[in-house]
Amino acid sequence: MTSPTTAAQPLGFGRIFTDHMVVAEYTAKGGWGPHRVAKRADFQLDPAASVLHYGQALFDGAKAFLGHDGKLRVFRLDAHLARMQRGAQRLCMPPVDAEALRKSILQLLDTDRAHAPTGEGQSVYIRPILFGTEGFLGVRPSESYTLFVILSPVGNYYEAGTKPLRLWVEREDVRAAPGGLGEAKTGANYLASLAAAQKAKARGYDQVLWLDAITRNKLEEVGTMNLFVQIGDTVITPPLDGTILPGITRASSLALLRSWGVNAEERAITFDEVRGAVKAGTLRGIFGTGTAAVVAPVGELGTAEETLTIPTGQDVSPRLLDAITRLQRGLSDDPNGWMTTV
Amino acid sequence: MTSPTTAAQPLGFGRIFTDHMVVAEYTAKGGWGPHRVAKRADFQLDPAASVLHYGQALFDGAKAFLGHDGKLRVFRLDAHLARMQRGAQRLCMPPVDAEALRKSILQLLDTDRAHAPTGEGQSVYIRPILFGTEGFLGVRPSESYTLFVILSPVGNYYEAGTKPLRLWVEREDVRAAPGGLGEAKTGANYLASLAAAQKAKARGYDQVLWLDAITRNKLEEVGTMNLFVQIGDTVITPPLDGTILPGITRASSLALLRSWGVNAEERAITFDEVRGAVKAGTLRGIFGTGTAAVVAPVGELGTAEETLTIPTGQDVSPRLLDAITRLQRGLSDDPNGWMTTV
Repeated sequence: MTSPTTAAQPLGFGRIFTDHMVVAEYTAKGGWGPHRVAKRADFQLDPAASVLHYGQALFDGAKAFLGHDGKLRVFRLDAHLARMQRGAQRLCMPPVDAEALRKSILQLLDTDRAHAPTGEGQSVYIRPILFGTEGFLGVRPSESYTLFVILSPVGNYYEAGTKPLRLWVEREDVRAAPGGLGEAKTGANYLASLAAAQKAKARGYDQVLWLDAITRNKLEEVGTMNLFVQIGDTVITPPLDGTILPGITRASSLALLRSWGVNAEERAITFDEVRGAVKAGTLRGIFGTGTAAVVAPVGELGTAEETLTIPTGQDVSPRLLDAITRLQRGLSDDPNGWMTTV
Repeated sequence: MTSPTTAAQPLGFGRIFTDHMVVAEYTAKGGWGPHRVAKRADFQLDPAASVLHYGQALFDGAKAFLGHDGKLRVFRLDAHLARMQRGAQRLCMPPVDAEALRKSILQLLDTDRAHAPTGEGQSVYIRPILFGTEGFLGVRPSESYTLFVILSPVGNYYEAGTKPLRLWVEREDVRAAPGGLGEAKTGANYLASLAAAQKAKARGYDQVLWLDAITRNKLEEVGTMNLFVQIGDTVITPPLDGTILPGITRASSLALLRSWGVNAEERAITFDEVRGAVKAGTLRGIFGTGTAAVVAPVGELGTAEETLTIPTGQDVSPRLLDAITRLQRGLSDDPNGWMTTV
């Protein structure tokens, strides 16, 4: 796209892009070259490039928000960069130069500032992508890499908008296993989810709720969101044991809940426990958190055998959504220093 | 490269390529375009292309062999194409047009026939790669795809050549879990293997032997090879339960062994069973099979606690290697119709 977006335009998610991108290149010999802002354009790749054949790619997703004061602010940029650094290590990629990347992302946002949408729930989605480019067939890390950062003006991730999500509890396919890549933001985890997501959609569900690979009972995540369950006054979210994405909105939600004195537990929680809480009437709500979705309530969990109706509006999720979006819009104090003004 | 290779040149594996490639493009609207042979060249890709972000890529690897009679023959081309068709379905990609691909691969081999190496153990490695190209950020199948086939004149896959391989029995990382992508030839499975392979190499091992994700005791595969264990006169290989690659050389080996009256079992076999057979003196050998490695004997299995020395030269692997390589070179009858002459 070449013209600034307006609030009236339905943006969708990840369909349109701004005019520029960050480009940086790495070679085993020369290390990282400069991070520069360039015109967004297609690029040249070798048909034998590592990323196509052996999947060496790592991405992240952050957001910048235009405040009513006209300032553009990025939410937890440093946390996103730190996650990329950990992911690159897991995938045997070169260390991410977080400081150079931080500066170039801010420069890119400044360059394409006019594309920032102003509507309710709209933002500039920031997508860094790092991938192996070496033209070599054989199973070993690439010796050259390209890093891009592209920007997409976005609306709500879910077409359903703010309607509670219907999740299909997947018992056949597995997103990630202990000892696998589940905590890295890499294509492998998303590719593993496509077939189950298609089946879930065919059954009328919005997304897949993943269970753990071993017991097939512990809740993992939704693929686009981490999951929180509120039973009574306690909010529970699965622990970071290596199989789920260490979400930035997840960490922010835990910090906010604890700052409010809410009992927020990181521990394994099974589907059986959720079913028991529904039957006992103690389940107050289930919600997902993620950069794309922010905080999204869940209204139903479905399996082949049963449908669990999940209460909505009775849990902490509306308060969390309000607190996070106010912070992102620059409408509240930022005691933790989570916002970076461009 | 632009000049034909010679037997004297050390080829390595996947380092050099021939001058042409097959190109075909698919769109959700228009279906597959023609499969055409073109000059091998870099190609243009959108920085938001699905393959970079969500890992939608499927490859295969076949081989063509120059016989002493001057004929170029492909080993089990139809089996490779059928595997691609199954893989594409698992990864929510468009159906592979096997007949168009078959024809274009043969045309490509004919075009670059002069690149076929003549040395012992050398061949033309055939690498089809199919991947999502749509520039869209969001977790769903791509609506456009590109298919390439590139050719690489290759020597032995393992630098060790025909020396028995030393395998590290991996107990921490997992290649694939039940319900995952283990049976598809996609980057995800190889990416999951990189960190463990680096650790294995640092310990002096050639490759990783993967165990199953659940019990961490059942043998799975080597990432570049399927695995066979011979105990007494019985040859055992792990079953195709969805977590390992359905190897073409694996299937060919089973067929050959059975045609020879050897008892060849497809069943789960644990590391404990292998250790027990070593201690009891009944283990006759372990070997891997794969298109790249053909048939490769294993000389050692290592863990943090123990090293198992595996006998070599006492099992069926030399006979299998000889039978397969003679067939591939056109030196023996082809009762199963496995060879396609270009």
